[in-house]
Amino acid sequence: TVNGDRLWDSLMEMAKIGPGVAGGNNRQTLTDADAEGRALFQRWCEAAGCTMGLDQMGNMFARREGTDPDALPVYVGSHLDTQPTGGKYDGVLGVLGGLEVVRSLNDLGVKTKHPIVVTNFTNEEGTRFAPAMLSSGVFAGIHSQDWAYDRADSQGRRFGDELERIGWKGEEEVGARKMRAFFELHIEQGPILEAEDKQVGVVTHGQGLSWTQVTVTGRDAHTGSTPMPMRKNAGLGMARILDKVDQIAWSHKPHAVGAAGHIEVFPNSRNVIPGKAVFTVDFRSPDLSVIEDMEQRLRTEAQAICDEMGLEVEFEKVGGFDPVAFDETCVAAVRDAAERLGYSHMNIISGAGHDACWINRVAPTAMIMCPCVDGLSHNEAEEISKDWAKAGADVLFHAVVETAEI
Amino acid sequence: TVNGDRLWDSLMEMAKIGPGVAGGNNRQTLTDADAEGRALFQRWCEAAGCTMGLDQMGNMFARREGTDPDALPVYVGSHLDTQPTGGKYDGVLGVLGGLEVVRSLNDLGVKTKHPIVVTNFTNEEGTRFAPAMLSSGVFAGIHSQDWAYDRADSQGRRFGDELERIGWKGEEEVGARKMRAFFELHIEQGPILEAEDKQVGVVTHGQGLSWTQVTVTGRDAHTGSTPMPMRKNAGLGMARILDKVDQIAWSHKPHAVGAAGHIEVFPNSRNVIPGKAVFTVDFRSPDLSVIEDMEQRLRTEAQAICDEMGLEVEFEKVGGFDPVAFDETCVAAVRDAAERLGYSHMNIISGAGHDACWINRVAPTAMIMCPCVDGLSHNEAEEISKDWAKAGADVLFHAVVETAEI
Ligand SMILES: NC(=O)NCCC(=O)O
Ligand SMILES: NC(=O)NCCC(=O)O
Repeated sequence: TVNGDRLWDSLMEMAKIGPGVAGGNNRQTLTDADAEGRALFQRWCEAAGCTMGLDQMGNMFARREGTDPDALPVYVGSHLDTQPTGGKYDGVLGVLGGLEVVRSLNDLGVKTKHPIVVTNFTNEEGTRFAPAMLSSGVFAGIHSQDWAYDRADSQGRRFGDELERIGWKGEEEVGARKMRAFFELHIEQGPILEAEDKQVGVVTHGQGLSWTQVTVTGRDAHTGSTPMPMRKNAGLGMARILDKVDQIAWSHKPHAVGAAGHIEVFPNSRNVIPGKAVFTVDFRSPDLSVIEDMEQRLRTEAQAICDEMGLEVEFEKVGGFDPVAFDETCVAAVRDAAERLGYSHMNIISGAGHDACWINRVAPTAMIMCPCVDGLSHNEAEEISKDWAKAGADVLFHAVVETAEI
Repeated sequence: TVNGDRLWDSLMEMAKIGPGVAGGNNRQTLTDADAEGRALFQRWCEAAGCTMGLDQMGNMFARREGTDPDALPVYVGSHLDTQPTGGKYDGVLGVLGGLEVVRSLNDLGVKTKHPIVVTNFTNEEGTRFAPAMLSSGVFAGIHSQDWAYDRADSQGRRFGDELERIGWKGEEEVGARKMRAFFELHIEQGPILEAEDKQVGVVTHGQGLSWTQVTVTGRDAHTGSTPMPMRKNAGLGMARILDKVDQIAWSHKPHAVGAAGHIEVFPNSRNVIPGKAVFTVDFRSPDLSVIEDMEQRLRTEAQAICDEMGLEVEFEKVGGFDPVAFDETCVAAVRDAAERLGYSHMNIISGAGHDACWINRVAPTAMIMCPCVDGLSHNEAEEISKDWAKAGADVLFHAVVETAEI
């Protein structure tokens, strides 16, 4: 098994970079803090005898050689970027869990046949630059690199420019690597494992996602002197659509979810009726037909609301992926490892999107989930126990070593 | 009568400073553009033989001497700051209309007994720094100057610091001046005069306003992996309150209005359920009891919505003024002037707040309104005709000269 204390210490060390305001982290992608976190990860990997590869999307690949130089490597990893008010474990556990696999193999003096590569994917969170899982998506051939470079943050700064600015744009062609398998350890970000009192989640599927950016256009006007019947209040139209989003998600209970996390009105002045509102609706379900139904109803219902209010409405799909079924052999390797180690475990569907969801398109992939307190994530108060972290990393260690062969 | 072409040219010249993105202006208070607009106004005033006074709130006072040095001056003016996506006339017409009064008196070689002072009040709009009419409010003793200096914009920059930064903080004590009368010419910002085909509005009253900042607190959480029943979605709570605001305003038709122009959610990330929403509700009515009723119902209804959703809610009153009745003598001077000049006119209640509403507390005050196309204001497309501008300025000229005595 791995060294749980060392893994925990590394998690705490990484959390010092890009601290949040409430005990968590703000280490958003392609910020100076992201660059600092990457540099620390690279130092640790090199100290563990790995050589670092870097591709044109800034994806990092720390390679521990295998005994067979021609054997396809086994990849492990996740992401080091965080939400603006994110936790210390979301993504980081998977990257540093991968590093802990390498360190533990070093401790044991064991060489695997297949090389092991610990990976940090750029911009998994998708907050600064939509969509989420951008760079694993380019790796898997879902997005073109040029399109990815053109994604802009709310200040209009381009992904490609920011990647260059922080000094982490590599030379390597994206997606050129072939993988024997990919394993991602991640916190659950939901309440199920804790409620069921399980140490490990064996992730069989991931639910799908649809992000629709909605733009409602009315007319800027004075809040005082414009009579009620003359108003075209885009903010009010947005409010009514947001309520409908909630109703649509509940109508597919228990398995669908829906909300808007990103909301803006223009010109955003107390005495101006908003002439424009822009917001992004996030719908998810493990069932593709449910996602499609919710997306369609959003468009129909929002159109009806706006028609009645004399508003214009436009829709743009700014992110999405279909529900995922992970590779049966890799999933079995995870389940067998948990079984062998005597950890309580259960099958689970990932509620969040992960780099593994895209990598699953180009390599046999599986995920391991670690419980988190109150199911809370994307919150600075996100918490896990050291024992949970170790259990997850132990399972990762066994599944990886099994697949990389000794 | 005044020189309508000269007035129009000055309006167009001023509009070149702090241009908007759609033909209007973004010359928000205490920005570099505001400083530039002030400098131009000062040059024009000095060229017209006035001397400029500047108080500690940055209020500007261009004085044309009277024949009796001990006589109280007649003040005219309004504001030069604009909304972020504002028009070319809101406020500016009143300041440059006042300057046109001086220029026309110069043309005629006429001296009034009482001095005439053309005024530009700082931060009338209230977008960068709430509340609106901040500096006329300090002048009238409504707010303390220290409190005003501490108002912060969305970037946390203080009013006092920004006033100093742009170089327009004067030495003069605020509110020390005594006025014989104050006249403000302003565009209507509503549809009534145009609909009634009147050239001039004789403003008898102003409606009152209440700004309540509402903060809804829930819990940041993942939009994908957090089951619907576990959510505390502050954005959704806000949406439901916004719909209620609209219902409350309609319930007092035809004379009450209500909306939220300022809306923000935190952390504002597409895949984070908003843990916090902050927005400002703007309620207005000519009837104080209606405003109080709307304010009270907002609190009650928002509390009920939040209780049901497991959200916290807090209310802060960030602006407000009671309905105003302008000075009967000054109002009569305006009506008489319109009559004498043969302009079609009607009594009107101001839907917006104006510096005149605060100055009315410390000096006899009246307002003159100019129609505007489609009643549209707080919009870059705000428009008036040159004839309307001249009619309003003519009435201002007569009312002022009448009051300042020849
Ligand atoms: N794991 C995670 O939070 N990923 C971000 C993408 C998503 O919103 O699911
Ligand atoms: N005239 C004007 O738009 N003033 C701003 C204050 C208000 O919102 O009424």
